[in-house]
Amino acid sequence: MKKYVFAGASGRALSMYCKPMLADYADTTKICGVYDINPDKAKVAEEKGIHFFNSREELLSDERIDLVTIATPNDVHKEIAIDAMRHGKNVISEKPVTLSTADLEEMIACAEETGKLFTVHQNRRWDEDYLTMKKLIDENTLGNVFRIESRVQGSRGVPGDWRNQPQHGGGMVYDWGIHLLDQALMMTLPRKLKTVYAELTNVTNENCDDGFRTTLIFDDGLSFYVEVTTSNFIELPLWYVLGENGTAVVNDWQWNGKIVKVSDWENRDAVPIVAGAGITKTMAPRTDDTIQTYPLDIQKAEWIEYYKNVFAYLKGEENIIVTHNQQRRLMRLVEAIFESGRTNKVVEFEDIV
Amino acid sequence: MKKYVFAGASGRALSMYCKPMLADYADTTKICGVYDINPDKAKVAEEKGIHFFNSREELLSDERIDLVTIATPNDVHKEIAIDAMRHGKNVISEKPVTLSTADLEEMIACAEETGKLFTVHQNRRWDEDYLTMKKLIDENTLGNVFRIESRVQGSRGVPGDWRNQPQHGGGMVYDWGIHLLDQALMMTLPRKLKTVYAELTNVTNENCDDGFRTTLIFDDGLSFYVEVTTSNFIELPLWYVLGENGTAVVNDWQWNGKIVKVSDWENRDAVPIVAGAGITKTMAPRTDDTIQTYPLDIQKAEWIEYYKNVFAYLKGEENIIVTHNQQRRLMRLVEAIFESGRTNKVVEFEDIV
Repeated sequence: MKKYVFAGASGRALSMYCKPMLADYADTTKICGVYDINPDKAKVAEEKGIHFFNSREELLSDERIDLVTIATPNDVHKEIAIDAMRHGKNVISEKPVTLSTADLEEMIACAEETGKLFTVHQNRRWDEDYLTMKKLIDENTLGNVFRIESRVQGSRGVPGDWRNQPQHGGGMVYDWGIHLLDQALMMTLPRKLKTVYAELTNVTNENCDDGFRTTLIFDDGLSFYVEVTTSNFIELPLWYVLGENGTAVVNDWQWNGKIVKVSDWENRDAVPIVAGAGITKTMAPRTDDTIQTYPLDIQKAEWIEYYKNVFAYLKGEENIIVTHNQQRRLMRLVEAIFESGRTNKVVEFEDIV
Repeated sequence: MKKYVFAGASGRALSMYCKPMLADYADTTKICGVYDINPDKAKVAEEKGIHFFNSREELLSDERIDLVTIATPNDVHKEIAIDAMRHGKNVISEKPVTLSTADLEEMIACAEETGKLFTVHQNRRWDEDYLTMKKLIDENTLGNVFRIESRVQGSRGVPGDWRNQPQHGGGMVYDWGIHLLDQALMMTLPRKLKTVYAELTNVTNENCDDGFRTTLIFDDGLSFYVEVTTSNFIELPLWYVLGENGTAVVNDWQWNGKIVKVSDWENRDAVPIVAGAGITKTMAPRTDDTIQTYPLDIQKAEWIEYYKNVFAYLKGEENIIVTHNQQRRLMRLVEAIFESGRTNKVVEFEDIV
């Protein structure tokens, strides 16, 4: 059986992803080489002991190659993916898969026509915080969940390279946004998304968004807030999940957090507290006799599972995890966010779950 | 000179507000008595050594009384306020002043016709957390502020009395909402509010809202998020304010919090960190060499200042702080929140600053 051979379509793919991830898979995979339009990357490849192709055509014509991974600026994923599939290669594209639904449909049509694998590197489906929150919801740990908040906040603005240039698909919606939005769509299945309200921010950058906030309303009333912002010198928690009987929080990348659940619903009465220029009973914090605190049950995961699934799919052993239809939903959601942000109106979403 | 004499229009007014607040003002004010439709309150008044009127008519006909404070369920503020002004009394209404713009306009028309004071007990303009954040913004401590988040979160649902009955003006928009929304409109002056997006929640209560979340967009682009929710077993900070050069947070009712400001804008580069199933440079936390942390400069305030202003106004010494036009804006905002929450659409706001 033929080995599954990687070719990166940019030096970035090589150094960031392929080599370290695949060291343990030497029996089934081999990195065949890499190509980058920047010839300086030849030296980087050489230092790593990896072959550097002289052109994309040369790479795509190499009969040994089964699988190409594309890690270029976002605006050229489509062109390269279609070229690769037409050369008989299976394709993993970096996220965002492309910049519009129209482009995505061309890529999918090419995949269907050629029969090649066309999938996207949605590596953050293996984020442990995401999987931990997903399990809470799937297992109804907090009772019926009615609100989920997912935030990633930085303070460095948008990176200074192509990632702040709109013609290359820059901005934080396409960057971190695409991860958190993919998680939001996946963890809420089988709900249908109904409406999208979004704000785009331009605090440090006028070319393209340097962040966004969006409220997604699903068909059962679930409210899902997603935020990616880059001018925050104090961070709010990564996850804040509200169920009828409890609340869960993940504070940071070390997965500090907790679950607090009500243990005595009947005992709602409280001693009023002083709260500024008034007193409040409604908002008095609970005392320990009616709530119980639990640690987070962190779900361990390995990013390499993404590639394992691709290899298993190519061997005919598994279905592919990151599907065309998931990418269609995600691309439409991104378009709805841009439309809502531009118009400051709620956008109706025709879901295709 | 005639003393400014209080009459509470419910026993609640008496016990919660008037007596303790006015102990230091015995030379200028006197509590003349109280009336409540519940005759059991006569005993409460007696125990406190306060006269209990036998009817509203008897109270309003008492020539000694200059000023009436109305602390009843929200739906009868209007009727009592108009009755009191027609009897020649000045009026402080509890918040919300009433339940609709139409009703408010009737109350204001009566005040203009009778020449009596008609104002609202917006005591939370003297909240120290609010004043502390307002000063930060007024003094540009964080640079240009582009996002303000104001939250009050509890876990006890809506109180079980008239405050969960829509016919009496129950629900959290009219309750805590009216305070935070008044603060939002006051601290952002002279900006004009342009649009309102809101979600109403019904987690513990179907009769009326048990919370809401709203995003207010002002004419300069400022985004102001206000949340009052009552099914939260872990609380997010009361205030979270983002400026171009820093962030401020007030965590709790003890005013714990901090300000973090950038000290070196040029030094934006970072060492990538591991963040779940990937690495990030954009979202890497800042190190101490480019930021500086400061304590909050808590603005001390006393709730009695509200009443002092009323007395000074009645003596002709000061303008009234809580004006008719402010109440008009606030009532319209409440109506916009209900409309947006009901329709799940963004509501355009015709501001009257």
